[in-house]
Parts: sequence; structure tokens; C-alpha cells
Amino acid sequence: MNKEIKKIAVLTSGGDAPGMNAAIRSVVRASAYHQLECVGVYRGFQGMIEGEFVDLDARSVKNTVNRGGTFLKSARSKDFMHKEGREKAYANLKKNNVDALVAIGGDGTFTGATIFGKEFNFPVVGIPGTIDNDINGTDFTIGYDTALNTVIEAIDKIRDTASSHDRLFLVEVMGRDAGDIALNSGIGAGAEEILIPEEDMGTDRLLESLKRSRKSGKTSSIIVVAEGDQIGKNIGQLADFIQTNLTEYEVKVTVLGHIQRGGSPSCYDRVLASRLGVGAVDALLDGKSHIMIGVQHKKVVQVPFEFAINGEKEIDKELIRVADIMSI
Amino acid sequence: MNKEIKKIAVLTSGGDAPGMNAAIRSVVRASAYHQLECVGVYRGFQGMIEGEFVDLDARSVKNTVNRGGTFLKSARSKDFMHKEGREKAYANLKKNNVDALVAIGGDGTFTGATIFGKEFNFPVVGIPGTIDNDINGTDFTIGYDTALNTVIEAIDKIRDTASSHDRLFLVEVMGRDAGDIALNSGIGAGAEEILIPEEDMGTDRLLESLKRSRKSGKTSSIIVVAEGDQIGKNIGQLADFIQTNLTEYEVKVTVLGHIQRGGSPSCYDRVLASRLGVGAVDALLDGKSHIMIGVQHKKVVQVPFEFAINGEKEIDKELIRVADIMSI
Amino acid sequence: MNKEIKKIAVLTSGGDAPGMNAAIRSVVRASAYHQLECVGVYRGFQGMIEGEFVDLDARSVKNTVNRGGTFLKSARSKDFMHKEGREKAYANLKKNNVDALVAIGGDGTFTGATIFGKEFNFPVVGIPGTIDNDINGTDFTIGYDTALNTVIEAIDKIRDTASSHDRLFLVEVMGRDAGDIALNSGIGAGAEEILIPEEDMGTDRLLESLKRSRKSGKTSSIIVVAEGDQIGKNIGQLADFIQTNLTEYEVKVTVLGHIQRGGSPSCYDRVLASRLGVGAVDALLDGKSHIMIGVQHKKVVQVPFEFAINGEKEIDKELIRVADIMSI
Amino acid sequence: MNKEIKKIAVLTSGGDAPGMNAAIRSVVRASAYHQLECVGVYRGFQGMIEGEFVDLDARSVKNTVNRGGTFLKSARSKDFMHKEGREKAYANLKKNNVDALVAIGGDGTFTGATIFGKEFNFPVVGIPGTIDNDINGTDFTIGYDTALNTVIEAIDKIRDTASSHDRLFLVEVMGRDAGDIALNSGIGAGAEEILIPEEDMGTDRLLESLKRSRKSGKTSSIIVVAEGDQIGKNIGQLADFIQTNLTEYEVKVTVLGHIQRGGSPSCYDRVLASRLGVGAVDALLDGKSHIMIGVQHKKVVQVPFEFAINGEKEIDKELIRVADIMSI
Repeated sequence: MNKEIKKIAVLTSGGDAPGMNAAIRSVVRASAYHQLECVGVYRGFQGMIEGEFVDLDARSVKNTVNRGGTFLKSARSKDFMHKEGREKAYANLKKNNVDALVAIGGDGTFTGATIFGKEFNFPVVGIPGTIDNDINGTDFTIGYDTALNTVIEAIDKIRDTASSHDRLFLVEVMGRDAGDIALNSGIGAGAEEILIPEEDMGTDRLLESLKRSRKSGKTSSIIVVAEGDQIGKNIGQLADFIQTNLTEYEVKVTVLGHIQRGGSPSCYDRVLASRLGVGAVDALLDGKSHIMIGVQHKKVVQVPFEFAINGEKEIDKELIRVADIMSI
Repeated sequence: MNKEIKKIAVLTSGGDAPGMNAAIRSVVRASAYHQLECVGVYRGFQGMIEGEFVDLDARSVKNTVNRGGTFLKSARSKDFMHKEGREKAYANLKKNNVDALVAIGGDGTFTGATIFGKEFNFPVVGIPGTIDNDINGTDFTIGYDTALNTVIEAIDKIRDTASSHDRLFLVEVMGRDAGDIALNSGIGAGAEEILIPEEDMGTDRLLESLKRSRKSGKTSSIIVVAEGDQIGKNIGQLADFIQTNLTEYEVKVTVLGHIQRGGSPSCYDRVLASRLGVGAVDALLDGKSHIMIGVQHKKVVQVPFEFAINGEKEIDKELIRVADIMSI
Repeated sequence: MNKEIKKIAVLTSGGDAPGMNAAIRSVVRASAYHQLECVGVYRGFQGMIEGEFVDLDARSVKNTVNRGGTFLKSARSKDFMHKEGREKAYANLKKNNVDALVAIGGDGTFTGATIFGKEFNFPVVGIPGTIDNDINGTDFTIGYDTALNTVIEAIDKIRDTASSHDRLFLVEVMGRDAGDIALNSGIGAGAEEILIPEEDMGTDRLLESLKRSRKSGKTSSIIVVAEGDQIGKNIGQLADFIQTNLTEYEVKVTVLGHIQRGGSPSCYDRVLASRLGVGAVDALLDGKSHIMIGVQHKKVVQVPFEFAINGEKEIDKELIRVADIMSI
Repeated sequence: MNKEIKKIAVLTSGGDAPGMNAAIRSVVRASAYHQLECVGVYRGFQGMIEGEFVDLDARSVKNTVNRGGTFLKSARSKDFMHKEGREKAYANLKKNNVDALVAIGGDGTFTGATIFGKEFNFPVVGIPGTIDNDINGTDFTIGYDTALNTVIEAIDKIRDTASSHDRLFLVEVMGRDAGDIALNSGIGAGAEEILIPEEDMGTDRLLESLKRSRKSGKTSSIIVVAEGDQIGKNIGQLADFIQTNLTEYEVKVTVLGHIQRGGSPSCYDRVLASRLGVGAVDALLDGKSHIMIGVQHKKVVQVPFEFAINGEKEIDKELIRVADIMSI
């Protein structure tokens, strides 16, 4: 065990995700379990620079496991991109006698953590908290499962009105670079078509497919569109195009937006967050640094930051086939 | 009892609302209870014109009380605005031996029903089914309570991310002419400000108020905007205006859209729908026509169509005061 | 305005109900609005005796409107039944310069509040917070609407498994003396039979009815049982009786229990709580005391404690008829 | 490809689970995709014996992906345990020109399917549908994820009232032989203690632990109890024991029961069901039989029935440690 570590700081950074509170709670309680002190940093790296720290013990985090958002708040920090900012942050950690840092967030967070950790030879471990599931080396990121459930519940509601009115709905979900949310929620919600950044369907093929479904007897349809998809990027324009060319339907657009980031985390995300928090403290005590704690095939694993950040997740071809078959 | 009535038709028309299925089910079962035949009409008045009828008995409507949307589907019918269309509709009713009609919908539905009923001296009773709660003579319309719960659940999620990031969110809810959904969901969701069509706040007053709240220590805010509000009509423009003038916040927009029309109805809406369906069949058997069945002070009442349509509901000043006090 | 009142205490007492936090929040913010001080009392009357007070300002109650339970906690107090206990409570109010009390709870709470208020000539106003909806003089109590939704969501789930297996389910819901929850949730959930304390159906009639339904083609059934119903009191025994006499079904029992008391309040309960809290502070400032703030026909009203407690609510015959017709 | 297979039958058997409808739908649509006919069998093996078949095409299964339960219904069949019953079943399959069977269920289902398949040399593929997650060779069974979410949502509600009243709640969840639901939902719901069949804690150790927590400042507690746990089997007795020995708390019991089997499936379960249904049809066309389609490390896999049934899943020691640390 790393005897040097007596006090751990924990922060959340980047876009918030359901389950971040559960992850903070886990880091705090795992610290208490190992009789370490724990301190929370508000507003991610920016709060570290500005010295916004709060002492946290096992009781401080009660009734947080089920709360959406992050009570430590999150922010993106421009100051942390500059050495001057990072030096202030380091000074604040030292002033507060912090020996190690757990950073909960996505690839931006891990990039910042890597630079910071190497610059000051400071132990840093990351926990993947983002709804986008776009981190390499972990099967799931905290918040992703909850976001999927939020999306399908919303689309289930939209389907009620779609099928009452023989309408075609374009539903935009999050995913600037990754189609995971669109693809999984599209299958889960029984979407007719799913448009993702990784594949450019083209408007002609989309139209052909919609016409075919209409002929096969479908009277209403849901199209799930990832915000980063080529033809779906301008979703209003796409809707107009379809409406013009497919007059049998009344075409409507719904952009789900920020409801996807909130809500009480699913059981899966709460358990995942609890496991990764414990794993993060274990790793620090074991002398590890510059790694992310993830989950692979149901086991907690340690992944170098470089791998977590740089690798590119590929879209699952099997899922695309399943989506195609389901919308027959 | 009106011995003439042996067969009742039921339809849903206009915008769909959660609880419409429960209302159809109630009309069907109340008909069965009184040993009347019942027939459903697809797609509202349009289906009546096109002769889309389906026989419904007590078992046909099982497992529908909890379903969103309307399994009879709904539509707006231009043909029904012309005498020719209505004559076809009347002929179809006669051909199917229908003696009376129950029309579930909003003011457009009741307007059509009034004209049709008078034109052919045909018994018609209405049931208020619309999320807008904008019908005179009934305390609540079917679907309104469910829509309010859908809105606050969505805003609860948005608040998670708003308070994690110190953001100001503009959330657009339904309500082209009526601010009921905005006002009630705004209070329920703890909104900072609520913008409704009935009151023009003006951008200056809004800005003053937001600045005051910020000073009072609020770090994130939700503004609920009815789609018909004067300054909120162009919600993107309003967001830009606020962002320009209130740089402390990051301003974001979410348009809830059609999720507000769907979902499994609340208990209140299911019970209301069940009561009004029974009341509609009772009224027809009692020889009544050209009335809407509503609820006032927990009692089922009968209201002339003219009153239901023409009266204008006023916004509740007490609620506006409560909203002001809650956002102190 | 009552210039004497400068500081208000607020407490929750008796069984907890969703929306109690929203009611506390409203009393606190209405106090702030009128520039009064506000103090919370933990654990109801018991905390008043033991001097557990906490200062509350407008910011103390942020993010509470959507929380179930009561952050001031609740308890039943035996000590408050004795003069000695009440004298201690009064002394603590004086010591804390409290000029008036708002008590949120049910009839037990109002009974205690009446005695206390008269004994010490101390201004007390009540707010009805109980899931049972068994208070006279108000159309709804805070928490009732939420409890109904919790019950129907649970029964919707049970119906999935009931209809998958051709089972008959007895579902016990709260209601020792009042059948309101059973009757409304039974209609909302599409129950076959609803057993309530106000009516003794008798096992023979129940059995006859179930046999009739089975013959009419129903393959699964839900019976909603209020815990205080005559034949449903011993629900295991009732299940055995039905199983013995109706072997076509597999009979199962589910007791919903305490999940009915929890959960995020519905929009209706949040708005009701907000309105009643404002009404309570208004009433105190207006020199009123020994009254409950309720809602009748959508208006906030003031009701003497005596009326609220002693009156007996009757079960709505129309609802019983609707329930009968719906289960045809 | 197995050219022999032109018609596939699908059935659900054993305890129902959320997502079974999504699995049926997937088998039906995958059949349609491969231009095979598909027929549903009602009530599992019993319906196969009694010849209850229904033709299913791609449109028959619309709007089923989000429905709880199983529209094909499920049952346990004693007749299928006898050769005579199975011979009738086989004759019915032949009469309906069925070439292969997909059986959705748990270990009982697979045991029956194995015997049947070998007896008549009939192609059978299984899909794991059970909330218990007690099948070997698949990381998850369909329905398990949904059940976990149902449990934590219920416990979240119970916690509201537990913490309002300083109570200790024993919450019984499903799991006669396997503690997976208890362990995961216990961590997810922030339980103080989790009692599972795989570990016998003993009442003394439980009591010690509860006393320690009380001293550490906890004022309310949730204990999650799997129905098959040694000391939790008689949950009423356990509650009495704790109440007698730990008088500071008020001890309450809630048995969640059959709500755990119902409800709209989670996104994970819908996607899993969709993938496994496609995998089952693929396997049959590929000439495979006597296997279960499962998921391992995010990939669809084929597992011999023998392995799926006989293997014993071990409880995850890491999860037990996480649970211990979280309840510090």
C-alpha cells in the first residue's frame, strides 16, 4: 500500500452525467474505509485553481447515490489549459495537504489530468463519467445507461402521439461524434431509421427506405437522429426535405436536448459508479497513477489515460444489423 | 330513459391527449352496462366521413386504461367543415345504425360536433380531452394532469444539469393561448420565472428580475416559457438577448415538444376519463344532446357546447402571486 | 396585517407524505416574502418539546420542491399529549422568539395543534399533509395525488405479470378508515373489484362477482383492497378463500406498503403545497388562528380545525358506480 | 444456411420477465427478414400441447417492444414433463409445419427444451428471459436490468419515509437461490446491509453491524433481503428480532413482490432481447440446436443448454466488498 497517501481530492469535470454523485460518494466512502481523508473540489479543475475545496466524510455524502447531476458541480476550465492555471491548482492541492486526485469525467478531463499529473508528478486516477460512452477501455461509462433509459421513455411518449396521428417524427438525441446513444435507443425505442455520425446514409437512401416502410403498412414512424449525423445535422432542413417528398406523413421534429443529462441514475450506473470509486482509491493506494478505472466484461480494470483517450471506439456492426432487421 | 338510443359511436378528434383511451373504454363499457351497442370511429370526423367504423364490446377495450394516445387515432378534418363532408358522415352513421355520438376532444371538436348535431338533429355529447385545459365549464380536461407531470419530470432532469453547471435554462412548454401548463408546471418545477401569453412581462422586467435573483445568491435558474408568450415566442432570440445581457450565466434552451402529449395517463386523468365516459352515456340515455360532460368541484356536470367553447378561461391571479413568492 | 408576528415556526407531524417538503419550502419563502423570520422544528411536536430548531431562509429550501419525505422529519409525540410536554414546547417557542406556528400533517396533528393553540393562546395554522385524503374541508390533501400515481404504476406492473400468467392478484393499498385511495386507484388501474372499509361486500358476493367475470371471458384480474376493509383485513386468509373456491385462477397477494408514502411529489401536490403554504402565512398575518388552509373548488380556503377534524368524509357513491361499470 | 427451416415457432415459458415481448418481436422480425414464416405458441409448452398457435408477421408485433409481460402468455406445464404430453406437442408442431422452436425462459424452460429437442431430434434454441440472472453462460438475462431499476425506484421511495421517521426498513426482493438482485439493488439503493442466500451472516453479526452504524450517526437504514436468505427467509421474525434488540429504531417490513416482474423494459433489456432474437434465428438457420443465445463481454454467443443449466453462478466477491465499503 502507498503509505504516502493520506488525503484524496475528488472532482467532477466536463459535461455532467447521472451517477457522478454516486461516484463521488464512493470515492469518499472508500477513503473513509481506508482511513484516509477526503476533500471535494467544486467546479472541476477551475475550482482547483480557485481553491474551492470542501471536506467530505462518510456522512457528508448520504442520500446522494440516487441524485442526478453532481453536487460538486462541473465546469470546463480554460485556465487549466495554461501552465499558470495548473500551477495555482497544484499549489492549492499542496496547501490542502492533498496527496492524490480522482477526476471524474470524459476525455477532456483525462487529457487535463494526464498533463497535470505528469507536470507535477502527482498521482491522478480517472473515472469515466459521461453519457456519451465514448471512452476507450471501458465497456460502459457512468451515465450512459441512464441516458438511454431517458431517451426511450421520451420516445415511448412521442410514439403515443405519432401513432395517434399517423405522423413521422425525427427525434434528435445526443452524440456529436458517437452514435452509441442513437443506435441503442433507436433499437430500444423501435425506431424506423437511425442516423449516426459513423455512417452517412444519404437523403436518397433514407427516402427510399421510408417509402418502402410506408408501403409495407406502417402508418407512423420514428427516426432517431444523432446530433452529429451528416444528413441529420440540420434536422429542420431534413424534416422539410422528407415532408416535401413524402406527403403521406405529417413530419414533426423533437430535439430531446438536456433532459438526457439529468435524472436519477439507473441501478446499473449507481453500481458501476460505486465499483469504480472503490477501484480508484484502491489503485491510488496501490501506487498507481495516470490510469482510468473502467469495467470490462463485468470486471473492474485499470487502463492508461493514453489508451482511454486516444483509442477510437468503433460502432458495432452487429447492432446496425439488428437495427435493420428490427425495422423490417 | 331515451329508448331510441340503441347504438352509440365514439371518436377522438383534434390533438391527442393521455387518457383518451380511458375515455373511449369508459364509453364502451358504459354502453355495455346499459346493453347498448357501441362502435368506434377511426381518425375522428374524417373517419366518420370515410366510413372507418369498428365494433367495440366490453372486452375490446381491455388493457387500454393505462395506454397513452388514442387507439381510435385522431385527425383534423377539413372535409368536415363542408356540408358535403358532414352529409357523408351522417349517411355513414345511419348506415351503421348509430343513434348517438360521443366526441372526445377540444374546442375544435365541440365546434364541429355542434354544427353536425344541429344540422341533422343528431344526439351528440362531448368529453373534454386535451392537455391544454382550455375548455370552459370543466375544472380539468383529460390529459392536462398527465402533461403537467411529464413537464415537471423533464424539468427536474434539466435542473440536475442546470445546477451542476450554473446555467440558466429556458424551457418551452405547450400553450399557444393558455398559460395553465406553464404556470402550474413552473410552480411545480420551482421555476425562477414563468412567461405566459396572458401577461406580457417585457424583456426589461425579465432581465431586471433575473439580475436580482443572481444577486440574491441563485447560481442556476429555470425559466418556463409558454409557446404563445409574447417575448418567449421566439425562444432562441430571447435566449440570445439574455445571454448578451447576463453574461454570468450560460444560457441554454430546451423545447419539450411532443413528449408532453404522450405517456401513460396519471391516476387523476384515468379516473376523470372513466367518470366522464359514464356521464356521457348517462346523458345520451337521458335525452340530452349538444352538451359537454365536465367536472366541477369534484362533481360530474353537463355544460352546453356553446358555453364550453365560447367562454374564456382567465388565468388565476392567485397562482401568479404564488409563483412570484416561490421564486423569491 | 398582524404586526405582532415577526417569526414563524414550521413543522411536519404524523405520517409523512410527498409534498411536505414543498409545503415547508412555501412557508419559508412566503415568510421571506413578507420579511418575517422563519424557523423549522425537527421531528414535529417532539422536536418542539426537545428544542430542535433550525433557522430557515429562502435559500435554505432550494432544491426541495421535488423531494419526497420531509427534511424536517416527522414523529408522533406522546409527550405532547401531556400538559408538561406542551409547556416545554411553548417555552422553547418563546425562547426562540417564535410568534406563530404552521403545522403540516393530518387530523392527529390538528388535534394537537388545537389543544396547544388554545392552551397558550398561540397562533397556529394547519396545512393538510397526508396521503389518506381524510381531512374534512379540503378537496385534496398534500400527498394524496402522488400516492394514487404510485399505486397505479405499481398495479400496472402487476397487471403485466397477472395477464401473462392468468392470475388473480389481491393488491393491498393504504386506507385504514378511508377507501379513497383504493377506490380511485382501483378505477385508475382497471381493477375487477375494489374492497373498501365503507362498504362490506361480504365474501359470497365477491366470489359470485369473480365467477361472473371469469365466465364473461376475463382471464386475469386485479382486486384492490384497502387495508381497513372488512373482508380484506386479513388479506392472506381472503386469498386462501378465493383460491379454494375459484380454482381456475392462481391467486397471489401483494401488499404495496410504504412505497405509497414516498416518491417525488406530482405536479398537483407541489402546486397545492405551494399554495397552501402561502395561504398559511397570509392567514397568520391576517390575525387568523386555529384554522386549516385547504382547497375547495380550486380556491384556497380557511377551515376551522374543529371542522377539519370532526367531520366525516363520505365515500362518493358516483365513484362506486363508475367502478362497477368499468369492471363490466 | 439450413434450407430445411421454413417456419419457426416461438414461445415464452416459466416466470415472465420484462423484455419477453421484445424478444418475441425480434424472433418474428428476424424470421420475416429471412423470409421464414413465424408462429407464436400461447402459454409456453402447455400451449404447444394444447395446440394454441397464432400466426405472426412483422406487423403483428408492432408496439410491443416497450410492453411488460408477454403477449404470448407463460405457464408452467406439468404435462410437458411426461412423454405423452411432449408427443402431443411434437404432433402439433408437425401439424403446423413448424421446423424449429425458439424457447424464451429460464433454466426450467431450457431443461424442457433439451429433453424435447433430443427426443424428437427437433431444432430448439433458447433465449434467457428471467429477472433472476441465474443462467450460466450469459452476462445478463432479459428482464434482470429492468427488475433492478424497479427495485431501486421502490427503495428510493421507501427511503423517503425511512429518513423522515428514523426508521429501519427490511425490504424483501426476489432471489430464492441467487443474491444478484439483492446485491446489486442493495448497492444501488444505498442499503445498510444486504442479506443473500450465498452468505449466511447470522443474526448476531447483523445486529452488531446495525448497532455500529447507529453509533456512527446513521438515523435510518435500509436492509435489502433476498427471499432465499437464511436469516431473512422469515422476514417478519427477523424484524421482530431486530426490533427487540435495537429499540432506537422503529422497524418496518416491505415485501416488494410481483411488481419486480412487470413494467416497461429498460433500454438495455430491449436491446438485449432484440439481439438475442436475431441471434436465435441466425443459429437455427446455421443448423445449430440445443443451445442458448447469450451475451458475453458485449458479444452475442452460443452456449450449450447443458452448460447454461448446470453451471452454478458464483456471487461476485468484489461486489460484496463494494457493498461493505459503501455502507461504512
